[in-house]
Parts: sequence; structure tokens; C-alpha cells
Amino acid sequence: MITGKNYIGNQLLSEGNKTYKTLNPKLNIENEHTFFEASEEEINMAVSLASKAFETFKKVSRFKKAEFLNAIADEILALDTILINTYMSETGLPEGRAKGERGRTIGQLRMFADLVTNGSWVEATIDTADLDRKPIPKQDIRKMLIPLGPVVVFGASNFPLAYSTAGGDTAAAFAAGCPVIVKSHPMHAGTGELVASAIIKAAQKTGMPNGVFSNLNSSGIEVGVQLVKHPNVKAVGFTGSIRGGRALFDLASQRPEPIPVFAEMGSINPVILLPKATKSRGENLAKTYAKSITLGTGQFCTNPGLIIGIKGEALDSFIQILSNEIIKIEPSCMLHPNIIGNYERNKANALQQDGLSVTAEYDQDIAINHARQTITTVEGKTFLENTTLHQEIFGPFSLVVQCESAEELETIISNLEGQLTGTIIAENEEASTYNSVIEALQNRVGRIIFNGVPTGVEVCPAMLHGGPYPASTDSRFTAVGIHSIKRWVRPFSYQSWPNDLLPDELKNENPLHISRLVNGIQTNESI
Amino acid sequence: MITGKNYIGNQLLSEGNKTYKTLNPKLNIENEHTFFEASEEEINMAVSLASKAFETFKKVSRFKKAEFLNAIADEILALDTILINTYMSETGLPEGRAKGERGRTIGQLRMFADLVTNGSWVEATIDTADLDRKPIPKQDIRKMLIPLGPVVVFGASNFPLAYSTAGGDTAAAFAAGCPVIVKSHPMHAGTGELVASAIIKAAQKTGMPNGVFSNLNSSGIEVGVQLVKHPNVKAVGFTGSIRGGRALFDLASQRPEPIPVFAEMGSINPVILLPKATKSRGENLAKTYAKSITLGTGQFCTNPGLIIGIKGEALDSFIQILSNEIIKIEPSCMLHPNIIGNYERNKANALQQDGLSVTAEYDQDIAINHARQTITTVEGKTFLENTTLHQEIFGPFSLVVQCESAEELETIISNLEGQLTGTIIAENEEASTYNSVIEALQNRVGRIIFNGVPTGVEVCPAMLHGGPYPASTDSRFTAVGIHSIKRWVRPFSYQSWPNDLLPDELKNENPLHISRLVNGIQTNESI
Repeated sequence: MITGKNYIGNQLLSEGNKTYKTLNPKLNIENEHTFFEASEEEINMAVSLASKAFETFKKVSRFKKAEFLNAIADEILALDTILINTYMSETGLPEGRAKGERGRTIGQLRMFADLVTNGSWVEATIDTADLDRKPIPKQDIRKMLIPLGPVVVFGASNFPLAYSTAGGDTAAAFAAGCPVIVKSHPMHAGTGELVASAIIKAAQKTGMPNGVFSNLNSSGIEVGVQLVKHPNVKAVGFTGSIRGGRALFDLASQRPEPIPVFAEMGSINPVILLPKATKSRGENLAKTYAKSITLGTGQFCTNPGLIIGIKGEALDSFIQILSNEIIKIEPSCMLHPNIIGNYERNKANALQQDGLSVTAEYDQDIAINHARQTITTVEGKTFLENTTLHQEIFGPFSLVVQCESAEELETIISNLEGQLTGTIIAENEEASTYNSVIEALQNRVGRIIFNGVPTGVEVCPAMLHGGPYPASTDSRFTAVGIHSIKRWVRPFSYQSWPNDLLPDELKNENPLHISRLVNGIQTNESI
Repeated sequence: MITGKNYIGNQLLSEGNKTYKTLNPKLNIENEHTFFEASEEEINMAVSLASKAFETFKKVSRFKKAEFLNAIADEILALDTILINTYMSETGLPEGRAKGERGRTIGQLRMFADLVTNGSWVEATIDTADLDRKPIPKQDIRKMLIPLGPVVVFGASNFPLAYSTAGGDTAAAFAAGCPVIVKSHPMHAGTGELVASAIIKAAQKTGMPNGVFSNLNSSGIEVGVQLVKHPNVKAVGFTGSIRGGRALFDLASQRPEPIPVFAEMGSINPVILLPKATKSRGENLAKTYAKSITLGTGQFCTNPGLIIGIKGEALDSFIQILSNEIIKIEPSCMLHPNIIGNYERNKANALQQDGLSVTAEYDQDIAINHARQTITTVEGKTFLENTTLHQEIFGPFSLVVQCESAEELETIISNLEGQLTGTIIAENEEASTYNSVIEALQNRVGRIIFNGVPTGVEVCPAMLHGGPYPASTDSRFTAVGIHSIKRWVRPFSYQSWPNDLLPDELKNENPLHISRLVNGIQTNESI
């Protein structure tokens, strides 16, 4: 069922000469299928088909669009064990995770199907005319959100399903009315092709135009670069490293016509331990965090890589228990030798920094490509002076910073780069006395958590997954939840437009019965 | 009352050595006041004060914020004749325009005061917890829009009030909770200082923090460059040329931490004349367009610089009448010798292009700095091949393109750069037979107009003032209307946050009685 070819719209092609294979990290051997990297010509064909498809896809009715999204979910489920097994063989992740992530992916697709069926997401806004107004007559103006055009989505190494081929970016783009070209992630090209086949089947079954979706294989950066530079591509979604995301952002901003890049990048997700809570709940916290740091072998963008507290017995005890607990956890496999290579290299670099001590590192024999979870600690002053210690170490690693005072704690927070999340561990009455610490943290993050862990990103309307740079390239948007659709649209106004030529969303009679802002009042009524 | 100094927060300073004067274009002599360009130190002081002010300003209650916005409007009105006279002496624009623009500016400030008083603009979104959910408990998550931080606003040459010091960008940024630093436009520095004094007075009267506003003089690009590069500046608003806007966009994207630039730039605002309407209403249309092209000496970003029709008697007659009508209009003064210099230069360059003919150019004696309105025409094929003819000529100029066919018309539209507006002149029954032409136009613009003129940008919720690049640097936002506040904010999520520590907008009891999306339902109820 896996061909190794590229989906150029509905057609499977393999015109390029460059090939590669994926790797089973648990067995440390190559998987069987050979993948053909997309050629320059195939890339141009995919974009050209997407531009053509956009002309009809943007006008597809909300019910047909919902049918398409639900059909993708159905077709992914229909792939059943071949998908789960391919996923596992390409990631080293366990079956439970594979199925959980599939559930999340399906859930996202159905969530967007519901959103477009309801239809109010277009933020229809109507100001009716007052042609008798003096000195100038007021014209009828009506605004709604319309799709941007073909969108390129980069598959993410750590979420082959939920943030890749038919993940949140793709689902939101389809919901908006944008064709999608996926630059498949080379580490899980087989999983990618299977999901792509599900999208293509769904598109054909529900009568979507050829080119509404393409899936391009690539093992290097060339395919991505060519896509981002293509004049007919109108926006880009990416989840991955700061270096990769920034490179795409730079390419996109330097185009003759710049386009938006939504890159969700690195984060060390600072956790602030306030003293009373550390004292009263230190042991439980340490146990909870040992699990959070090693969850998914630390390969989550919300992994708590930085824990900051105020020096003292309570913090000492927390570090001690965290260190004891974390080495009790069975090490697990990372996604790929390159990923574990980076983990070991970045960790070794951190350990060479002056003043950093290791309080725990798993030191028993481990299987190949498995990661040794590690806890380190450093003084606040040292951390503040050495920004190397502020960099993400992607994997089961965390650094505990010991501050002299609440002031130093606040200074450290203010000097952090932008983060996806920040967590405050506090007793209820304690929080109000650390107002300025909490505020400093709020300024640096996209989501702030009280007495919890940053891992776990609920897919719900109130979720903000993003944050100040470099957590993301645009803090004004979320990558998760219904509002992520706003990345792929622009508002558009009709002035004095004849009612029968307006899109249904803006017609007087409100045939879709959606919620609209009419002359300043939010209403489902007709005009 | 005009000192020529910079407002660095509440303080008037003139530490720099570089000075300049504004010019009265009607008299072609310098105005009396000397302006001191802001020094590097003054710029840093202004940004530093703005950062400090942000800490308190972002928490100011909605009523205090509305009081501040209304007080600015009151203080601008209180400036009375000195403001109107200074405006006229620095722009050559007539009193009616000065008062009209003041009215628009006041209206925008009060509109945002109403918006923040209502409070629902923060898009509060709440998903309550379900701690019994299997397999993972659902946490309580609540999201709202929060301000980005200090914003830099560049004054626009053609709107000294409505798009400059206390114009739409500034009003929206204050409403969002962002301090503002204005880079004053050198052509109307006196008007700028007067309005700045009104903002400072309003800030002091309503107890806003020092630094919530600064006004920096500058005659060159250095002040703007330093501001956009300053790490504590978080967003930029600009209205002006493509060259200027793109330069700021490039600077901002190349920062270590990129920031958004909302540049509303050039546009030729294509007007499509469909054949039947041209035949039946050609004379009226020509008269209407002669006025629209010369309105404000053609110095509007929505000026119709391009009219496209299909060859034939009707179009010939339209061109003839438009040409006759436009030279009957009394020429008017442009904003500045530099502006008229550019107009003459760009026009001369266009007239040198092969195939372009002049059908009308005002040829009587005119006063200094007054512009000769000009109508030109060209064949569709020639226009398509020569993109020099696609460039904006800022002033009372328009080019009529004569197409061979509807196909050529559509091709021309598809090859235009992004535009603020597009206009369709059609009989009602005619529009539906030119569907693909209308759609091609929709793809290139931010606002589409039926049987009207593009000049006149209504300030209302349904207005989209912006459009695909290079009409603006970000088609996803509007520069006019309440939704322009979205440029200066980012969404922010609280997870499991104690109710009493949440901002009022997100508290269970909904103390502000705002409209919120609670568990998927839009409601004003408490939880």
C-alpha cells in the first residue's frame, strides 16, 4: 500500500532521482520502502494544481467541506493496523501513543467539520446603507473571512499524525477553503503517504477538485525551500526547530510578495516553584514532574526543560526527589538516530558549561536509540549570565535553577526568550504575593498554567498554542483549536454589492442562519 | 503653542542638533517654527518610558481607557482654530477638508472608547474543566486578547489627522492597551505637535502613566529605523509608499525577534467598466470619475488610477467625456513640493512609455505646487506587457486601458499586483455574465465596490482597508474600523487559573457582562 511516490494531486508520481528510506529506531534498521524525493517539476505541478483547485474549492458549500473533512477522518480510521504499525516502525513510539495521536487527529478533523457546518466562523459583519446621511451618503458594506490560497504544511518529526499530513494545520486550512501541499517529514514518510492516500480517497469520494491536496517527499531542505518561494503559495505552516522555522520565515519575508509563516518552534516551558508550595507539596511535585519530563521521551514542544525556584531546603529536597524518581523510569526510544544524536550533543554542551551540575542521569545499560533522562542544576546568577543554558535540549532533560531571591527569579523570567507555556506552582494565597513574578512570566509566554504540568495541549477553543518569538513566528495566532483557522484567511469587504450576487454568508435573508454583526449588533436574524 | 520639540512622554525635549521647518505649499514658503529632530538618546528614552508605562497601562480599567480616548478627542477639539490653521498651512488642503478630517479623527477615538467600554472585543473564550474525563482529565482553559506592548506609528503625509498622530493606528493601539510612539511626519510636524499636546494633556488629566505616548520629530529615515529596530518595540503601523513600507517590513522581519509591520501602501484601485453600463451610463460615470480622480488632488490611497474597459464606441465616448470634464475642474495644491515633484516625475515617466496617449492634461496657467490633472489611455496588450504602467502615480492621474475582449480584461486583472480596492461598473444583469472577471478582481483586492467610486473609506465594522501585497504588508488585517484593534493584540490562555486571580473578562461571574464563548456557546451569562 506504500508506494514511496509523491501524490501530485490525485496522481502518484516518482520522477525524481533522489531516494531515501525511513528508519526503525527501535531496531535501528531501515524500513523496507524506498521514497522518491519530489522533483522540481513535480513541485511546480503540485502548486499549479493547487492554484487551479483553489478556484473551485474556495466556493465549495459548507456541507460539502464538512463531508470532505469527515471523510478524511473515516479514511484514516479505515487504514487501521497498517497505519498504526507503520507509525510505530517509523517513530519507535508505542501503540498507545499511536492510537492516542490518531484519535486526536480524527477529533481535529471532525471539530473543523462542525465549525464549517455551523458557518459563523467567517465573522460576517454587515453595515447597511444610509443614503440620506449628510454630508456623505453611507454605503452598504459587508465583510467576511475568505481563504488565502494554497497553503504549504511541513510535517513535524514528533507528531506524525496530529501535526503532520492531516494534522491541525491541514485540517484548519481545508476548513478555511485553502488547498494544501504537504512537505512530508522524511522520518515518517510511510505514515505520511498512508495518511495522504486517505485524504486523496476522501477528496475523490466527496468530489473535491484534483489538486486540493498533494504530498511531496523530501529528505533535505530543497523541496521546502522551493515551495516557500513559489509565487502561488500563499501561506506556510511549520512545527519544528527554531533554526528550521526561522529559515522558512526569512525566505517567506524576503519574497517579492511576502507571505505569512506560522512556525511553532522551540520552547523550554519554564516552571516556577514558589516557596510555600515547594515546601508543602515538594514530593508530589517531584514525582509528577519526573513523569512530565520523560513523557514521550521528552519529545513534546511543551516539555518542562526549565524549573526555577528559590534556594533553600524545600528546593533541595525537591531536586533530590526529582532526581531519585526520574532514574526509576524506564528509558524509552527517541524518534530517530538524528534526534538522539542532537539530544546527546546538546546535553553534552550544556554539561560543559561552568557551574552546571548533574543531579541525576540514568546510568544503566540502555537499548539503542534510547535516551538517558537527565536532571541538572545551576545557580540563578550563572544561568542569567550564560544564555547557552536558555536553549532547548529536545529530550528528557530538565535544568533546575536555584535563585537567591524573588527578585532574581523575576529577573531571570524577564530575560527568557518567548515560550509556549509557563507554569506557576503555588499555594493559592502565595500567588497574590508574587504578582510581579507572575506578570513577568505572562509577558514571555502564550499559555500560563497554575499548579499543573505544561505537557498536554487540549484541543479546545480556549487553547492558545503559540507564544512570543521564538516560541512561534507570530504570537497573534494559535496552532491548536478552532481559532487556528484564522491563520489561513483574510477579511474581505463588499461595498454596495447586489444582494443576489453576495455570498450566502452576507445575504440579507441570512440563508445559512449564522451569527453576524449587523449594524453593531450580534444576531442570527435576517435583515 | 508649537515649540518644535519632541514629547518624550510628558516632557518636551530638544537635545538633537538637526533641525528643519515645514513648508506652506500654497505660498511656497517655510512656516515659522523650527523642529528639532529626535536624538538617539531621546528615542531610547521614549521607548524605555513606553515599556515602563506598558506595565500599568495594560491593566487600566476599560472605563479609564475610554475616558482617556474621549479626553484626546476633547483636547483635539479644544485646539480649535490653531489646529485647523496649522493643518492648512502645512498641507495646502482647504478648511473643509481639515475640519472633515478632524471629525473623522474624533469619531475614531470615540468609536474605540465605545468599543473598550463594551469590553467584548477581547474575544473571551472559556472551556471549563471536566476532571473526570477519561483517559485524561480536561483542565479549565480560558483565553482572551492582550496587548502586544509599545507600538510605533508613522505619520502619513496625506492624512495629518486621521492616519497620523492621534489617527486610527494610535487610537486602536491605545484601545488595545499599547503605549504609542509616533514618528511624526516631517511635512506636518506642527500639526503633529499640536495633536501630541492634546494626547499628553488627555493622558495627564485622566491619570495615564508617563510614557503612554511620545511624539518624535524626524526629517529623514534615521529615527524611524532606530525605532523599528529597538528590541522593546513590539509592532509598527505605517501608511505611505511601497518603498517606505517595504523597507520597514524588511527591517522588522530581520530583527532577532521579528515584529509585525502593518504598512498600508500603494494602490491604483482598478475600476472595471463593463460594456452595457458604459453604454447606458457612460456620461454620468465620466463626470463622477472626473471628480473622484481629482478629489483631494488625487492624494488618496483609494484614488482610481486605473480604469479598464472593453474597446468600442461606448468606451471611446466615456474617455472623451472624462477628458472634457476633468480639465474643467480647477487644479488644486498638492501637499508639498516633494509630492508634486514625484507626481510630475512619475507622470513624465509614464508618458514616455510606448503606446500611451494623453487624452487630457490641464494646460492653463496654474499656481505653484498645483497639479495638472491628466487622463491617459493605452491598449490592453501594451499595458499587460509593460508593468511600469501598473505603478501608482500619486496625484490626479488616471490611465484608461482598452481591452480587445473580456478574456484580455480578465488576464489583465489577474496580472495586477494586490490592491486596496477594485470597482465593478455594471448593469445588474451584466454582473452575472462576467463572473470570472469579478472573481479575478476579488483575488487581487481587499474591498470590492459595485457601481461606486473607491474614494471614501467609511469608518465602520464591516470596512476592510488593506489588501493583498503590496496594498498592505498583511492582508489579514484592516487599518480602519473597530477590527483594526486586532493588529495590536495577541491571544493568551490561562490554564487551571484560580478564579479570583483571573482578569475580570474571564472570571466565572462575568463582572463586565461581556459576550464570551463558554463551552462553545456565545453568551453574556456568568458561569
